[in-house]
Amino acid sequence: MLVEVRERIDAIDRQIQALIAERARWAHQVGKAKGPLKAAVDYYRPEREAQVLRQVLDRNDGPLSDEVLLRVFREIMSACLAQQEPLKVGYLGPEGTFSQQAMQKHFGHSAKGLPLASIEEVFQEVEAGHADFGVVPVENSGQGTIQSTLDMFLASPLKICGEVELAVHQHLLSRSGRLEDIERVYSHPMSLAQCKAWLRQHLPKAEKIPVASNAEAARRARGADDAAAIAGENAGHVYGLKTVAGPIEDRPDNATRFLVLGRELFPGSGHDRTSLLVYVRDQPGALYAVLSPFARHGVSMNRIESRPSHTGRWQYAFFIDVSGHVEDAAVASALAELGEYAADVRVLGAYPVALL
Amino acid sequence: MLVEVRERIDAIDRQIQALIAERARWAHQVGKAKGPLKAAVDYYRPEREAQVLRQVLDRNDGPLSDEVLLRVFREIMSACLAQQEPLKVGYLGPEGTFSQQAMQKHFGHSAKGLPLASIEEVFQEVEAGHADFGVVPVENSGQGTIQSTLDMFLASPLKICGEVELAVHQHLLSRSGRLEDIERVYSHPMSLAQCKAWLRQHLPKAEKIPVASNAEAARRARGADDAAAIAGENAGHVYGLKTVAGPIEDRPDNATRFLVLGRELFPGSGHDRTSLLVYVRDQPGALYAVLSPFARHGVSMNRIESRPSHTGRWQYAFFIDVSGHVEDAAVASALAELGEYAADVRVLGAYPVALL
Repeated sequence: MLVEVRERIDAIDRQIQALIAERARWAHQVGKAKGPLKAAVDYYRPEREAQVLRQVLDRNDGPLSDEVLLRVFREIMSACLAQQEPLKVGYLGPEGTFSQQAMQKHFGHSAKGLPLASIEEVFQEVEAGHADFGVVPVENSGQGTIQSTLDMFLASPLKICGEVELAVHQHLLSRSGRLEDIERVYSHPMSLAQCKAWLRQHLPKAEKIPVASNAEAARRARGADDAAAIAGENAGHVYGLKTVAGPIEDRPDNATRFLVLGRELFPGSGHDRTSLLVYVRDQPGALYAVLSPFARHGVSMNRIESRPSHTGRWQYAFFIDVSGHVEDAAVASALAELGEYAADVRVLGAYPVALL
Repeated sequence: MLVEVRERIDAIDRQIQALIAERARWAHQVGKAKGPLKAAVDYYRPEREAQVLRQVLDRNDGPLSDEVLLRVFREIMSACLAQQEPLKVGYLGPEGTFSQQAMQKHFGHSAKGLPLASIEEVFQEVEAGHADFGVVPVENSGQGTIQSTLDMFLASPLKICGEVELAVHQHLLSRSGRLEDIERVYSHPMSLAQCKAWLRQHLPKAEKIPVASNAEAARRARGADDAAAIAGENAGHVYGLKTVAGPIEDRPDNATRFLVLGRELFPGSGHDRTSLLVYVRDQPGALYAVLSPFARHGVSMNRIESRPSHTGRWQYAFFIDVSGHVEDAAVASALAELGEYAADVRVLGAYPVALL
């Protein structure tokens, strides 16, 4: 029985391997008409990758989860690209940061990651062409927008050509798994903050004890019957703790969002987002007027964030994310009208919406 | 042309996806005869994985490199295992260390990694069953054996069930790419030490300047015509530096070696190594006598390392690695004879030789 199953798996592996090699050869054909291409960056098309991965998800009827299957296909695409000089992607280092995770989630492990010391440096290295792309955090759901990232766009010519989301889920873990036993809750201060409302409602009397990391919290909770930890579910598996409740973060969409920076705009993938930088004169009703073209053309706005413009000439700069690609008719029409109301409009990027 | 190529790739992806799903279903059958299995650790067979990956390498005739192809198949196997509760693997943290890289190289990204504070803690968590496996460094080619790892085996019942090697190659990089321009060489102190002989021979007069990281060294070298950096080749790509020479490490096999710790011995994969802990009485000729059975049975020794035994009863403990699996006839015969000469012999593990 075991031998037979293994022979079947071997046969499947032979077929998969032959198909991956064939895929790699075809991928190498893409764009050849454009002339001699040498590096992966010449072949990389984010809109196409997003389409391929969306098809993979649409087709998935098990047994593997969407998340696991996406990871495998991301690696296959990453491998096919790495036939040429691999993609070089700068990220906010050091190694082991969420930015590195986001980079690897988006580009796979056959891309070459470059840990950099600051968000500024990521912009610089991409601008100078030393990195093909960059990955920087732009939003922690706990802390809100990372202003310093947005501000970089005020002076940088770079384009946003992708976004990545890393989900962060918090669970309450304890040895017994019973809420009524808990008198102390250990966790990293950030995680305690993310679950503040839940704790106030369900454990108003428990002592909240900040520790260096959620793993440390789980280790402590393992040692006592009246203690619990707030940590990822994974820590529960590892430390033999039971889940008392989860996810317990106050914002159910708790995630960190990253932007992928590049030097050019890519075509639409069919499910995209456009990021705009809009300068508005300081006069009554100006912002309202600026937003009206989107409403008129049925373009939904996902985010708006005002910043001092630093130019002195205009009082305000607005970072606005809208649904759709800048080439889509509705977005293009809204942008054309926007020009009448705004002092200046820059398209920061148009890119596929993050998948998972 | 482009549309046609993309349609072909889409068709290939559909086939790959169907095959991966089929593979996952068969993988789920493996071992079902043994009764109800719940977690990935019940399905994990390192000797089988090594065989599958060796077959992949044997079959590979391009266009993807062995390294890239191995990574893809490692992820496919990791994904198929992750249908059950995923493997939990402790490693010497924090995240971003070489130990994490080694863990991911060996187990793929669908395994759950647990960063731990010390090598001792990795042993403890695996012994206690909170982690299924552990990954710890055992040898840096620069510094030699990590004694504290070996010493853990003196008191631990854990078995070695795998090894992982991470290659570390150093290159001399500069803006011009010309050796004669170089008056200063920047690098991390460890990298400078690893290339000492090469530097003495080729750049005896250049100033060697230690800096915090090899990436920092590359950044500095980019700023001056008379400076060079010792760093990975990747840094050269990223910083636009040319390779003056490389690899230039004094030991051409420069690598870090890691052990995979588990709670049981696995069967042979056909290309294995056995690690032994041999206690020897302090008497003339004892070590020579202990080694003779290996020679007689044609078993080659890969390593030998003596340590104080800490038991008081025997003066010396020897860590010995030999080629072959403990179940192989030659190794088994040598071990049987060894019992006559040694005060005690423990099989620390028998595991597939690292692939790449």
